[in-house]
Amino acid sequence: MTTRAKRRIDDLGRFGGDPFFDSPRHVGQLNFPEWDRFRAGMQGIFDRRFFTNHGPKVRELEERLADHLGVRHVVCMTNGTLALTVAARALELTGSVAVPAFTFIASVQALSWAGLDPVFCDVDPVTHNISARTVREALTGDVSAILGVHLWGRPCPVDELSALASERGMKLFFDAAHAVGCSLGGRMVGGFGDVEVFSMHATKVLNSAEGGFATTDDDGLADAMRTIRSFHRDEKFTEVPLRINAKMSEAQAVMGLLSLEDLPRNCRRNAELHALYRERLCCLPGFDVVAFDEREANNHQYLIVDVDADGAGLSRNDIVLLLEGERVLARRYFTPGAHRCPPYRDDFPQYLDALPVTDRLSERLLQLPLGEGITVADVEGICALIRFFVENAAAIRPRLEGGHRGAKA
Amino acid sequence: MTTRAKRRIDDLGRFGGDPFFDSPRHVGQLNFPEWDRFRAGMQGIFDRRFFTNHGPKVRELEERLADHLGVRHVVCMTNGTLALTVAARALELTGSVAVPAFTFIASVQALSWAGLDPVFCDVDPVTHNISARTVREALTGDVSAILGVHLWGRPCPVDELSALASERGMKLFFDAAHAVGCSLGGRMVGGFGDVEVFSMHATKVLNSAEGGFATTDDDGLADAMRTIRSFHRDEKFTEVPLRINAKMSEAQAVMGLLSLEDLPRNCRRNAELHALYRERLCCLPGFDVVAFDEREANNHQYLIVDVDADGAGLSRNDIVLLLEGERVLARRYFTPGAHRCPPYRDDFPQYLDALPVTDRLSERLLQLPLGEGITVADVEGICALIRFFVENAAAIRPRLEGGHRGAKA
Repeated sequence: MTTRAKRRIDDLGRFGGDPFFDSPRHVGQLNFPEWDRFRAGMQGIFDRRFFTNHGPKVRELEERLADHLGVRHVVCMTNGTLALTVAARALELTGSVAVPAFTFIASVQALSWAGLDPVFCDVDPVTHNISARTVREALTGDVSAILGVHLWGRPCPVDELSALASERGMKLFFDAAHAVGCSLGGRMVGGFGDVEVFSMHATKVLNSAEGGFATTDDDGLADAMRTIRSFHRDEKFTEVPLRINAKMSEAQAVMGLLSLEDLPRNCRRNAELHALYRERLCCLPGFDVVAFDEREANNHQYLIVDVDADGAGLSRNDIVLLLEGERVLARRYFTPGAHRCPPYRDDFPQYLDALPVTDRLSERLLQLPLGEGITVADVEGICALIRFFVENAAAIRPRLEGGHRGAKA
Repeated sequence: MTTRAKRRIDDLGRFGGDPFFDSPRHVGQLNFPEWDRFRAGMQGIFDRRFFTNHGPKVRELEERLADHLGVRHVVCMTNGTLALTVAARALELTGSVAVPAFTFIASVQALSWAGLDPVFCDVDPVTHNISARTVREALTGDVSAILGVHLWGRPCPVDELSALASERGMKLFFDAAHAVGCSLGGRMVGGFGDVEVFSMHATKVLNSAEGGFATTDDDGLADAMRTIRSFHRDEKFTEVPLRINAKMSEAQAVMGLLSLEDLPRNCRRNAELHALYRERLCCLPGFDVVAFDEREANNHQYLIVDVDADGAGLSRNDIVLLLEGERVLARRYFTPGAHRCPPYRDDFPQYLDALPVTDRLSERLLQLPLGEGITVADVEGICALIRFFVENAAAIRPRLEGGHRGAKA
């Protein structure tokens, strides 16, 4: 790693200096198995000549995931977005679904593909998740379900949401894209609500390059999801109106199986880097690193900082620009909230000024690089950069306000 | 290959004899590259650590397909069904789409996922495709497009459909899942209509285990499809209301690239087996093998027989049952027509008795095994079996009518 220490603000990449890193540092995990292990698994597929359509590796992955998560059924699919859409259809939802606006846009658009409208809920300022209170405030007459999102891997308040769903005769399901390997009250995410849906995209700690799966303890729902995910006659378990191709291929499953083997190791490594970030950033003014309940299982795959511009002297957006200049590709995650994205900002304008916590978090939260591609030295470097920014905030701010001149990325 | 000659009808697997083949003979291509070639391509992905999100291999596949098909844009996706849905959304269709009922159910359900209703058209009894006449007979007021299906790889009558679409202000697109490597008037399928959509499922002559792509000469449509297929910010080319994860991974692209290299060879091999089937079956009474215009490019991936029960002495369904007993997994393709499948049979009952050609073909067409797993000896064996069935039809028919007893598969 070639890094260039910053002594003066003219040294900053943003202001024309050489970037600190010689290559980009990305957010996202990219925890991939060693090539030799993948090769062996993939060669088996070629030997069997069974490449897709619910082959032996997909079935094995479903069994292993079910064991790992302590849930009765796992239904593997080609990605998490389609798994959400398939889950919504299997639940036979109608009308609207209560969903946080502070989430990845796919959580909401997956509902739209299933013909459902969002009822946007605000989130709790501390947990960043929906609560019974925020859902109750948003509820309208035709809400058939709550879709909770376990943001950053921190589980939603499942008990109070379950009570509310029961009280109102609504289904409850979860977008657990962030939350594989996380627990609540000692129970693994995957067993909550009617269905939970996971992503195995390349950037997730458990991944199959592309991939996803749904979990449920309900035999009927599992049958419905297995039927909906494929047009195959052999895979027809129940009568459903619409089916789709959401099949996971054998190659995806091989990668997922190897990733599942590596999951404990990768979570441990994430935890170490996460702890290092917290240690380095905790005493910076205006920086609050999102923490996990260490009595629970956590995957620590997201390093999220709540940046208070008054305390730090620089806004979240300033920090992102300055880091970009050093080839650190931090993210504004999620900006804007789903209620401000098409088509919802036009179709449901009533939410535009109704979700103050979502809007506030959208302005303040920062995601920093963490995962296989990131070393201890990278974290030290990133934190040293941020410290330099904050310590020189008074001199930096007017130069940033002067415009985007001199940027070098 | 262990095969067992049939001397008496008691020798038939259906009636308790040993099956002719010692392992199943499937329809579907499974033309996969040699492991060493795939290994080399896949190892490159691990070296680059670029696994998905429109990586270099997907871009290369898009370029090579565009060259091969002589079309301006190729947009790769995770499978053909989603590519159809994405194409329908990119075309900004509303209301209904005219579509043949005699097609794989995914052609129609892909429209339903895009919020569109089918207007079912009958097909031409000779070409098995829609024509301007069959579409015109079906048209209602709110039809925004025609979706033609190039069934068995035989192109629809593009010119007359284009004229009709222009006349009525409708879009025209094609499900070309069967038709890669096929031409019409010397021009490759891929350049017709507003968009064409291909499948690269494992069972197709060009395949990536799972996969698909859309083709268009229209820059705006290509931009829209590229935007809709992914939630990635970096891949946003235009404003669209809804996006989805329909990304093709790099592993899929590597397999697709190798398959594209092999396509001419695999088409030649299919053509040889196809010719052998035609030669062996042509003089059997009641057997009419679907032929191709040999002045055009053809992939010959489907061996389809129109079985006339009066001539053959046995129905298509009888032949399928008898072949099953010999471990030949022939298919009733497509049975029933899409208009008789859920949800359409309930939502659009007006079509149930309105499509006589579709209903007739659904009862008569038989798909026989062809592809990489099938040898010349297999074809000889399958044709000898069919000849034996037909020659002994008078004795076989009463035994079949006696029920399903004694089956051994």
